[in-house]
Amino acid sequence: MSTVLEQFQLTRSASSSLAMASGETRNAVLSDIATLIHEKSADILRENQKDLDQLAIDHPMRDRLKLTQERLSDLAESVISVMQLPDPAGQVLSKKTLPNGLELSKITVPLGVVGVIFESRPNVTIDVAALCIRSGNAAVLRGGSDAIHTNTILVHLIHQALVQNGISTDVVYLMPTDRELVTALLTAVKFIDVIIPRGSEALIQRVRKESLVPTIETGAGVCHTYVAANAEISMAVDIVVNAKVSRPAVCNSLDTIVLHKSIASAFLTQLVAPFTSYKVKVYADNTSHPLLKSLNYPFLEVAKEADFGREFLDFACSIKVVDDFQEALSHISTYSSRHSEAIVTSDEVEANYFLSAVDAAAVYWNASTRFTDGGEFGLGAEIGISTQKLHARGPFALEKLVTEKWIGIGQGQIR
Amino acid sequence: MSTVLEQFQLTRSASSSLAMASGETRNAVLSDIATLIHEKSADILRENQKDLDQLAIDHPMRDRLKLTQERLSDLAESVISVMQLPDPAGQVLSKKTLPNGLELSKITVPLGVVGVIFESRPNVTIDVAALCIRSGNAAVLRGGSDAIHTNTILVHLIHQALVQNGISTDVVYLMPTDRELVTALLTAVKFIDVIIPRGSEALIQRVRKESLVPTIETGAGVCHTYVAANAEISMAVDIVVNAKVSRPAVCNSLDTIVLHKSIASAFLTQLVAPFTSYKVKVYADNTSHPLLKSLNYPFLEVAKEADFGREFLDFACSIKVVDDFQEALSHISTYSSRHSEAIVTSDEVEANYFLSAVDAAAVYWNASTRFTDGGEFGLGAEIGISTQKLHARGPFALEKLVTEKWIGIGQGQIR
Repeated sequence: MSTVLEQFQLTRSASSSLAMASGETRNAVLSDIATLIHEKSADILRENQKDLDQLAIDHPMRDRLKLTQERLSDLAESVISVMQLPDPAGQVLSKKTLPNGLELSKITVPLGVVGVIFESRPNVTIDVAALCIRSGNAAVLRGGSDAIHTNTILVHLIHQALVQNGISTDVVYLMPTDRELVTALLTAVKFIDVIIPRGSEALIQRVRKESLVPTIETGAGVCHTYVAANAEISMAVDIVVNAKVSRPAVCNSLDTIVLHKSIASAFLTQLVAPFTSYKVKVYADNTSHPLLKSLNYPFLEVAKEADFGREFLDFACSIKVVDDFQEALSHISTYSSRHSEAIVTSDEVEANYFLSAVDAAAVYWNASTRFTDGGEFGLGAEIGISTQKLHARGPFALEKLVTEKWIGIGQGQIR
Repeated sequence: MSTVLEQFQLTRSASSSLAMASGETRNAVLSDIATLIHEKSADILRENQKDLDQLAIDHPMRDRLKLTQERLSDLAESVISVMQLPDPAGQVLSKKTLPNGLELSKITVPLGVVGVIFESRPNVTIDVAALCIRSGNAAVLRGGSDAIHTNTILVHLIHQALVQNGISTDVVYLMPTDRELVTALLTAVKFIDVIIPRGSEALIQRVRKESLVPTIETGAGVCHTYVAANAEISMAVDIVVNAKVSRPAVCNSLDTIVLHKSIASAFLTQLVAPFTSYKVKVYADNTSHPLLKSLNYPFLEVAKEADFGREFLDFACSIKVVDDFQEALSHISTYSSRHSEAIVTSDEVEANYFLSAVDAAAVYWNASTRFTDGGEFGLGAEIGISTQKLHARGPFALEKLVTEKWIGIGQGQIR
């Protein structure tokens, strides 16, 4: 563990050289990373194969772990796209002269050292390093052991790009994957400024419990879509189907349909065909279950209490029928993970009340919850979707990898 | 404990009514609080006397705890001043139409429920409640047991003002002072959105260690002033004396003078008279000790390693003499608590390098570190000075009692 702490200290020390490097230098590093990904693609794929060889041929993680020539091109492309985003550091947020003549300004500066704990996807290594370097932050990366060969060569290339531009390789540190070293990271308050866990709920819980370093939680998304009494039914069906099936394993996908009783029968009648074609398993409440049963819906279950507030991450969802708008709001307030929530309605007053009253990172009127995403929002690549309220809420992208600094310039002012 | 959790839940539920109340209504509550402080001053002073009666007549805490007619007037005045600050919620941070027609905006909204743990000063009760109500946040207050009678009547008046304006009294909850209930607060992730500890280093450590709720650390200030080779000596003496003696018990007061060797003798020669008059105990390093000894400085000690990075909170400081600018930066980087740091110099290049390289909430050139304060910065009353980097850095005032919310308005957009 002492070696790891020593390396954290080196990363802390080196971080200021990166913070003070020019935007051009930092972008030159990114450009070199993209070039090296192309040039060394054969080496990367060879190392990636070593990781794949450790997994059974039908292991579900293989696809997330596997790199191909095409995926490497996409990865290099995403590094280039980060170069084109505005530098979030060095922005002047306010500037004024106090009555005593002190010139006071507030500017954005890099956070310092960002720790990211993530699981097997090796593209995270490049994405996080690119975002951190672009914004002048040093990074401590703790990837999954399944991807260790791939991550090692990727960080080797990042180091090469740093050296080519005269910046210490200490600014990007790939930690060993020993489980107990995660604790060293979570308690290194002197060296690490923020920790971002990317991964399972269990990981996020561990970080929340153990970390002494401030964290950004990128938590689970338990997302509702409320189909109101005045919803246009075909629009509601399109939105619900899209929110559920376009990518069910991601955090902004639909988990529960909240349905006004007056529209329930008509809505479900139209939902049956598309949901059947995607084989969506439906955990239906007491009211919707008999309706779906009478429509001969083939993938039907009785909802239990645990099926509300449940993140399905699969072709599955629950349905809750409510008597009125207030019951819908109350259900969402109780079970929401405050990620993304939507209402489908033609009633503007009701919609505006929903947008105001529902406490979530993103709220939608007549649109799919699937839009909550850094790329969709025009923010570029994201480190995760924050479901907490401090510092960043929703997509945690480049623009949030900064803190503030107050600068006072005087001529001898005292208080 | 179950009662406390039930009350947290009531506070959570009530918080949205406050968040959705108009700015006029929230300000009417504040106005009524100010009026009630005046009208009920005799009752408040009587309850305050009960708390004072629990303390020995020479107890150092008496002064912090004691209210007077004049202090109550100041308190009512500070509530009125919060009314005049702009509402931090409801600001549109960005607004755009995505290529698919989705109208996407990012607005500020209240954090929700803010938990504040503080020690004996009863003015905090009113200040925090006023800031929270103004910004649409519910508040859970956990004050010190020494001030329980005073806090109880103050919260009673706040409740009266809420009732007069049709808002549930649940939005301001004064917790019982049992120590174990602090744990209930720190782990109530479902009900509390942020916790702010105000008080001793021990309290802040406990919160950092135990809290599952995101926190804003308002930590200790270990503040340096670097007197550079090219400093104007009389200015440097004025700044150092002000930073040390104007209010030594607060976090932005000076703890260590870092002194360039070439100017050490001349600077100390001028420092001796004012420091002697304030009886400032000086913990001097190997170089400055003989100099001060030869100047017959009467309050002299030999600095130990522990005297660097030490927050004195008294008429005392340490002195470190350095060979060059880099050694000064390195000393500050090692021992700073990243609160407030200053350089005194006539060299603009060196000053700008210092302002950029030193990692602290506030950095000053030719000014006293004592300026780091919400009121001085024009932000109004503050809940504390944040020494962490997420969300708020430096004075944590009204403007930071908000989070963001993304709002997407569509016409059936799917992804």
